[in-house]
Amino acid sequence: MTTDFAATKAMFDLPKGVIYLDGNSLGPLPKGVAERLGRAVTDEWGQMLITGWNKAGWMEMPARVGDRIARLIGVAPGTVVMGDTLSIKVYQALASALELNPSRRVILSDTGNFPSDLYMADGLVRTLGQGYTLRTVAPEDVLDAIDETVAVTMITEVDYRTGRRHDMKAITARAHQMGALAVWDLAHSAGALDCALADCDVDFAVGCTYKYLNSGPGGPAFIYVAPRHAETVRPALSGWLGHESPFAFDLDYRPGRGIERMRVGTPPILQLVALDAALDVWADVTLADLRARSLHLTDAFIAGVEAACPELTLVTPRDHVMRGSQASFRHPEGYAIMQALIARGVIGDFRAPDILRFGLTPLYIDEGDVQAAVAILKDVMDHRLWDRPEYRTRAKVT
Amino acid sequence: MTTDFAATKAMFDLPKGVIYLDGNSLGPLPKGVAERLGRAVTDEWGQMLITGWNKAGWMEMPARVGDRIARLIGVAPGTVVMGDTLSIKVYQALASALELNPSRRVILSDTGNFPSDLYMADGLVRTLGQGYTLRTVAPEDVLDAIDETVAVTMITEVDYRTGRRHDMKAITARAHQMGALAVWDLAHSAGALDCALADCDVDFAVGCTYKYLNSGPGGPAFIYVAPRHAETVRPALSGWLGHESPFAFDLDYRPGRGIERMRVGTPPILQLVALDAALDVWADVTLADLRARSLHLTDAFIAGVEAACPELTLVTPRDHVMRGSQASFRHPEGYAIMQALIARGVIGDFRAPDILRFGLTPLYIDEGDVQAAVAILKDVMDHRLWDRPEYRTRAKVT
Repeated sequence: MTTDFAATKAMFDLPKGVIYLDGNSLGPLPKGVAERLGRAVTDEWGQMLITGWNKAGWMEMPARVGDRIARLIGVAPGTVVMGDTLSIKVYQALASALELNPSRRVILSDTGNFPSDLYMADGLVRTLGQGYTLRTVAPEDVLDAIDETVAVTMITEVDYRTGRRHDMKAITARAHQMGALAVWDLAHSAGALDCALADCDVDFAVGCTYKYLNSGPGGPAFIYVAPRHAETVRPALSGWLGHESPFAFDLDYRPGRGIERMRVGTPPILQLVALDAALDVWADVTLADLRARSLHLTDAFIAGVEAACPELTLVTPRDHVMRGSQASFRHPEGYAIMQALIARGVIGDFRAPDILRFGLTPLYIDEGDVQAAVAILKDVMDHRLWDRPEYRTRAKVT
Repeated sequence: MTTDFAATKAMFDLPKGVIYLDGNSLGPLPKGVAERLGRAVTDEWGQMLITGWNKAGWMEMPARVGDRIARLIGVAPGTVVMGDTLSIKVYQALASALELNPSRRVILSDTGNFPSDLYMADGLVRTLGQGYTLRTVAPEDVLDAIDETVAVTMITEVDYRTGRRHDMKAITARAHQMGALAVWDLAHSAGALDCALADCDVDFAVGCTYKYLNSGPGGPAFIYVAPRHAETVRPALSGWLGHESPFAFDLDYRPGRGIERMRVGTPPILQLVALDAALDVWADVTLADLRARSLHLTDAFIAGVEAACPELTLVTPRDHVMRGSQASFRHPEGYAIMQALIARGVIGDFRAPDILRFGLTPLYIDEGDVQAAVAILKDVMDHRLWDRPEYRTRAKVT
């Protein structure tokens, strides 16, 4: 292993006394982000004003930062662009994929997908009308459900609750074999796994950056379009910055070159600056090392919890190839248990109805954190520390 | 006049030697934004981590900040929500308006509209198919073109090039009289005019915040839905944060309460924090004073330029009721003239083919700035200072 994870851990400003196992929901603050963002505000916006779009390179940021993401998902530079939210990018990818496969009407997804993906697909098929439909099956039935009626598969690689990982290569191959296109959501993959999208021959992919890529709350999303489609798709969300010549202010839309056409409106520069600075942590990280370390930490956490807390039931697959970078356990009192953990500095999260979710993120979590978290969880379970009124009162959870 | 515009001017950090007449493209940095954003990064994201969504009030920001915008566009609290870009909000408003008027198929707009609005409408009608179409007429023909085939009008109140202002009340009334709905784009209105949307009975409105509201590059957009429609519309962009209960993670979409349903994905918190801080400048500003001061400054600028530079031809209407908060002039050498001005600290911008555009923004521009800008422009014109190779080489303009 060539990656120095002690060095990456030192690049984060984590609060004292906190073991942060929720980087799969919101990544922590990397050192250097505050200072870089401060400079962008004061020296770029403040001093350059409108000229920052050229002088500070703001206009090119969606593509330039996209290239940095490209390496982390296993695709070539020039195939990824930043902007909007993941939900918007799902809509964009689906609309384009459907248009590339005009004789078919079915979007296939699974019930383990993140609900927003299903909601956006629902909104799209309602807007399209004309017999378009969203078909959902159980996660384990996806492969068999890809038939000759399916226009596009829309699958999130790693289940946000269970951490189960789909077989991207097999599903994409099956989709292509049946004449369908494959759209992948990498929300819990980018920065978490050894993503190899080009190798899997994926058609479209989308993802967010505020989880394993640590861009901060509401960081911009990304979209990947396979080069074979990039000059063919006509975006449904045809905004001016995806135009061939935005500053010609033509009345008619003409899609821009390749991936540039997937841009929509004015990009969120402040969030992009935070992301750009946060990506510096990845400079010396290899994806193979990241994946090995993630599996090692997750194995250790699962083994520790199962030995210490037999009341908790693992829901994440033990099989490495079927697992993302998190471990989830069921318990009827999951909500209260998580509150008790958070009160003791172990931050994971809870997903209804009964799932305790822990993200194992190699950039800043090490074996010592894993052992400490297990010990605190054991203490909470052994002494029923969760059984207090203040832990059972449900606030809105994120 | 009760508003103290010397006080608001003191709330901005403008670079020395710059007269900034491009706040209609990107507003300058208000004092306090850098510090507030720095705290959000370090104390909220850095220390609260995932709990910031509740503890720091991030989750409610789109509605809370929307309420602050509401006052500036003349509508009630609870009718505006922040998020995405203006282009996305245009799509959202149009899709909703069309669905409320299902027997009709025409979006009516004008050729003076900002191109992205036309492009987004084009993308929407292509996605809808089924005979939906975008019809554009000349700006002066809008009122007469609203007939019984029109489902929805999509008009930008102030023309981004000429500064011509449409009659919002008359067009909206005509639309309603003919059975159409009215969508208004406030890109050059919010923070620039005495907007009174509720008084005009507008159905939907959208706008950006990085111009006259000074939220910084890529600041979030807003959308207003009239209360009479808010519980009826079913969003086409049905993201999870517009769901009735986002954290129930239901598989089926159910629209949230009222304006909340126009939320889509995870909101851009860092950009929202910058906007929230920037809105503090407005605390003691009345819209009537803002409008009076804007007209006064624009009159002074127009009179000064016409007296000093007869070669420049005014394209902005002289009539106050037909004018936004900018003054535009034509000259065949407009591009080079603007470059020469910028080199001398007067920052306006250029819009092809021949328009020099100057934003008159009362919050930080005063009579002294206007006189100084006119004097510099006179110098540039009198001595043909624009006629140098370095001013004629066209870079990408924003």
